[in-house]
Amino acid sequence: MKTRTFASDNFSTVDPRIMSYLADLNTKGHAQSYEGDETTAEAIRLFQEAFGGGIKVMFVPTGTGANILAIKLLIQRPYEALVCSMVSHIYEEEAGALAANAGVQVFPIRHQEGKIDLEALKQDVAMRKALEYHSALPKVVSIANTTEYGTYYLPEEVKAIADFCHSNDMYLHMDGCRLVNVAATLNLSLRECTREVGVDILSFGGAKNGLMSAEAVVIFNAPESDIPRMQKQTMQLVSKMRYVSGQFIPYMQNNVWRENASNANTLAKRLAEGLKEKLREQVSFTQPVVTNQVFCIIPDVTKTKLRAAGYTFYDWNSPGEVRFVTAWDNTAEDVDDFLELL
Amino acid sequence: MKTRTFASDNFSTVDPRIMSYLADLNTKGHAQSYEGDETTAEAIRLFQEAFGGGIKVMFVPTGTGANILAIKLLIQRPYEALVCSMVSHIYEEEAGALAANAGVQVFPIRHQEGKIDLEALKQDVAMRKALEYHSALPKVVSIANTTEYGTYYLPEEVKAIADFCHSNDMYLHMDGCRLVNVAATLNLSLRECTREVGVDILSFGGAKNGLMSAEAVVIFNAPESDIPRMQKQTMQLVSKMRYVSGQFIPYMQNNVWRENASNANTLAKRLAEGLKEKLREQVSFTQPVVTNQVFCIIPDVTKTKLRAAGYTFYDWNSPGEVRFVTAWDNTAEDVDDFLELL
Amino acid sequence: MKTRTFASDNFSTVDPRIMSYLADLNTKGHAQSYEGDETTAEAIRLFQEAFGGGIKVMFVPTGTGANILAIKLLIQRPYEALVCSMVSHIYEEEAGALAANAGVQVFPIRHQEGKIDLEALKQDVAMRKALEYHSALPKVVSIANTTEYGTYYLPEEVKAIADFCHSNDMYLHMDGCRLVNVAATLNLSLRECTREVGVDILSFGGAKNGLMSAEAVVIFNAPESDIPRMQKQTMQLVSKMRYVSGQFIPYMQNNVWRENASNANTLAKRLAEGLKEKLREQVSFTQPVVTNQVFCIIPDVTKTKLRAAGYTFYDWNSPGEVRFVTAWDNTAEDVDDFLELL
Amino acid sequence: MKTRTFASDNFSTVDPRIMSYLADLNTKGHAQSYEGDETTAEAIRLFQEAFGGGIKVMFVPTGTGANILAIKLLIQRPYEALVCSMVSHIYEEEAGALAANAGVQVFPIRHQEGKIDLEALKQDVAMRKALEYHSALPKVVSIANTTEYGTYYLPEEVKAIADFCHSNDMYLHMDGCRLVNVAATLNLSLRECTREVGVDILSFGGAKNGLMSAEAVVIFNAPESDIPRMQKQTMQLVSKMRYVSGQFIPYMQNNVWRENASNANTLAKRLAEGLKEKLREQVSFTQPVVTNQVFCIIPDVTKTKLRAAGYTFYDWNSPGEVRFVTAWDNTAEDVDDFLELL
Repeated sequence: MKTRTFASDNFSTVDPRIMSYLADLNTKGHAQSYEGDETTAEAIRLFQEAFGGGIKVMFVPTGTGANILAIKLLIQRPYEALVCSMVSHIYEEEAGALAANAGVQVFPIRHQEGKIDLEALKQDVAMRKALEYHSALPKVVSIANTTEYGTYYLPEEVKAIADFCHSNDMYLHMDGCRLVNVAATLNLSLRECTREVGVDILSFGGAKNGLMSAEAVVIFNAPESDIPRMQKQTMQLVSKMRYVSGQFIPYMQNNVWRENASNANTLAKRLAEGLKEKLREQVSFTQPVVTNQVFCIIPDVTKTKLRAAGYTFYDWNSPGEVRFVTAWDNTAEDVDDFLELL
Repeated sequence: MKTRTFASDNFSTVDPRIMSYLADLNTKGHAQSYEGDETTAEAIRLFQEAFGGGIKVMFVPTGTGANILAIKLLIQRPYEALVCSMVSHIYEEEAGALAANAGVQVFPIRHQEGKIDLEALKQDVAMRKALEYHSALPKVVSIANTTEYGTYYLPEEVKAIADFCHSNDMYLHMDGCRLVNVAATLNLSLRECTREVGVDILSFGGAKNGLMSAEAVVIFNAPESDIPRMQKQTMQLVSKMRYVSGQFIPYMQNNVWRENASNANTLAKRLAEGLKEKLREQVSFTQPVVTNQVFCIIPDVTKTKLRAAGYTFYDWNSPGEVRFVTAWDNTAEDVDDFLELL
Repeated sequence: MKTRTFASDNFSTVDPRIMSYLADLNTKGHAQSYEGDETTAEAIRLFQEAFGGGIKVMFVPTGTGANILAIKLLIQRPYEALVCSMVSHIYEEEAGALAANAGVQVFPIRHQEGKIDLEALKQDVAMRKALEYHSALPKVVSIANTTEYGTYYLPEEVKAIADFCHSNDMYLHMDGCRLVNVAATLNLSLRECTREVGVDILSFGGAKNGLMSAEAVVIFNAPESDIPRMQKQTMQLVSKMRYVSGQFIPYMQNNVWRENASNANTLAKRLAEGLKEKLREQVSFTQPVVTNQVFCIIPDVTKTKLRAAGYTFYDWNSPGEVRFVTAWDNTAEDVDDFLELL
Repeated sequence: MKTRTFASDNFSTVDPRIMSYLADLNTKGHAQSYEGDETTAEAIRLFQEAFGGGIKVMFVPTGTGANILAIKLLIQRPYEALVCSMVSHIYEEEAGALAANAGVQVFPIRHQEGKIDLEALKQDVAMRKALEYHSALPKVVSIANTTEYGTYYLPEEVKAIADFCHSNDMYLHMDGCRLVNVAATLNLSLRECTREVGVDILSFGGAKNGLMSAEAVVIFNAPESDIPRMQKQTMQLVSKMRYVSGQFIPYMQNNVWRENASNANTLAKRLAEGLKEKLREQVSFTQPVVTNQVFCIIPDVTKTKLRAAGYTFYDWNSPGEVRFVTAWDNTAEDVDDFLELL
């Protein structure tokens, strides 16, 4: 495999600034385990700077864990259900974690370029509520921003969904495993993409953008809970918490998150443009390239050549379709070397 | 708080050898996410060296996750139950994770100094089996070694429990979050403490002995499963896996685990002896000091003085009882400074 | 409300032959509780007559319980999932019972007139299997016969789905809450509709066709289980079992089930034809009328008139759509009186 | 087997007054399914007469279902746990239903003659609360009255437990599968045994005292819920509800419940006295005989003789111990015939 490829931002390395923060932290001696240590407190402070006061934050080691934990916090009755797009990570790529760990039914909904179709959502919720006690009760809507197709919701689109949720006694969860790429491409603050447009709870990704195994759940509005207890039960409360939470300190300071995400976004555009230039009518893009993912159909011979040269990438849903992802640590040279092969 | 205290081995730092391994790994570029990368393969190879061939290994970020995952792998029917000591971490300190995430009932059993009482176990299992379909079916026994009281099972004691399990169509799980301390104190190999005496599946701790957020589940004998799928569903499959699994490479090489555990064990003895010498009849030990935990009753005035000097430690079950834990990174000076205060 | 209406076969009475069987049984004194009594043994014998030897049968008080129990028997790993039509009762009308009680994820699939679309099924399963450990694993397909739209699968259609399941390491569950109406309309035996065409496990309805609160789960092929234990855990093992199982004795003898179902089917045809004759172009049928359910769009004024006259019936999915169900205890006079109003 | 034996009140028949009520109800034609029908409304009215206004009532087909449903109604967070006696039916004889269906951990507690030990309860709850987020949170205490040992709690004993619960932010559930036997023996109203002494939710048994498969859950004080939805999800909402709920109409009118329970209680005393008279020092009673259960140790030769004569009864926990249960439909002649054999 190449040192840096375009298979997934999950393949990427850890930002050296994070690494050296951890090395430094490691010289400071013992600290309270699980929660309540000074490093975690400082990380929370930085989240409050970014998202405003009155929030609660949990730092967790996995993205699936962040999603399940976030949804568990919003569910109060075992008959309450989740609604999400039918290509949602929670529905398609978490190995049934929500049903297995939280007993929550999922209602998948039609989408447009990865974005939940608001009309379909409204109809589906209305239909299920009309079934009364025969149906599980739609209680949480979950959207991913960026979506699983690399597209994004504009703030006003998020707000429209949030408004629908709130006027129907429902909550809005955002799976923000790549939220930074939206904020970077739209030049918005994290708060403008989330809390200000009605998101109730956010899974905020870290690993795809330069952290090690570190994600956060940010609670803007949720029913009362014993949060560390929920986190412990959900197997997301690491004992040496400061090594997870601490990663967010350099990340949130000086906008490292934005810098890294912008780089990935820029390189995706460069890659897409290069593909277009090199392959011309032999490439067709199956999704708009607006963040750090490129979905396109390319000739089989091209795939073979690229793989022979050591590049890894995933075949996608449609025949011939592949996905390229640019990561925070990719460089313009990576892209150019890759394009050179074509 | 003091730089190094005796509150918990979960308060400890990361062994610098681990830290520098990660920093070095981080320069090597992209790698396969989730599973199947070269670092993880190498870590597995080292586990095979330690435990023998034919095993499977999962690397996970939390100890509670390791336990739940291990037990899920052994449970095949929703009516199968776990039996463990009534002071078991799984029963007492995992916030109901086993019931909530796996739907498994727990039957707690009497213990002796933290060790499950084999006669009580036999009677309990026999009684529950006699209840036939009215009762959940005892299927897995879980023991912690070292126990929650810092004591240990000798290999022959483990074997007696394993033999009972296997002749009753049951499995034996070992919560080895501090297994290294047993192996160090008894001068045994990890394999001699587990696989050779009939353990079917092992939660092998790392964080308490110098790793960052890294534990392993080692499978010697379990029903067939899609293991990564189980791990993903259990929210224990981190995307950048090599930063978890990789920590075990320096740890397993050159017996770093044993060196660290031995140091902790030695210091616990030093601490206990110092307490005896200084406090004489004012201290009474509530458990034998045989690994890295010291349970004792000391005067209130002593507690106050120690806390005033910046030491953190937990009050325990009995009136006046406290727990001191020595960690891999404590030093003889730490102990002596502490004793000095008395 | 009218004495006999067309709201639902769940509104119907109990066949007097069942009632008098229970009254007679009640004079026979005490009997073994839960399972193993003579009445239950005789009921099982009659099921063996109907379905052939080598089967196992459980008698349960609720239809949702029958479905959940059937599926639990087929699921061996917590990541195994159910696939069913997106209008399936299990998905839409069991209040999330499968996720809540068994932790099983559901993948809903496109349908044609209530029948699962085989091509969509094949594509969906292939796609999810290709996602490997990221996805829950499709393991059981569930179809309802008759469907939720009153249509039915022909035996060869069931067989095609069963063949697909079995060649993909999956099981086929049939929700037969109205299976009798299929068997009656097609003049087939129960066995020809189920076991002979590859059904692995059957929920066999009773309450809709003249029983009191009595359904059965018939196991043709399933992983080994302690069946009464599963039934007890699933809250479907009634203590005075003979009053549930016993209902099936008169029901299965002399084909009471077929007689009752045929009557309901015949009356649905009579009702549909009467509606057509009376309302002409003002009625349009939204589903073919082939068993005991009539889905159609009728004028609002007609609905109002019928309801004013004491008839209860449900509004359905499409605008203006209503559902009429004929029950085992309806009569030709009931239909004619109803039509008279139009 | 004998026509009427002393194996279990679950072996008993249905009171003919109930049977004839159902037969009569069956002539009244169709009725609303699931909930909201007139029969159910009348049954609820009779419960309100017995227990006072402001209650909610659910009618269910199984006792285990009643318990699980009751506890689900009290649990609001997945980390909330149940505390009960270590011989509780919920803990020992429901096949793990609470963990499997509701994900709730159980903390079993020491008992005295089947009654939860209040001091042990207080200590256990205090200890678990002190463990903070590491432990599941004790939220519901469940007691059985009569207990699994045939003993009972006096109203003031219930009140002491209820007071403890309420001052610790916990609820009290009563498993009243044989509550009628307590009320009969103490000559108290049902309300005096439950609501007036602080019970929050009651599983009220029917099947053991002359009903067919009919139990009730009576809610005095519980968090807000969509109750039919919870009941449907818990697989306890039968479609032809009136045949379950209706059984309670004759049962609650004219104190049929008390008459039947008194008869059973009286016969247990007669049986115990007869055993004492006949077997003298060869019988020893392991529990006080105060309701309708007799626990005693009798010679093996006596057991053999009784079984040879067609009597069924269960061996119990201690060596040589057996359990006899007198049912609502046993007679003085049944007892005398039985004693005759000795």
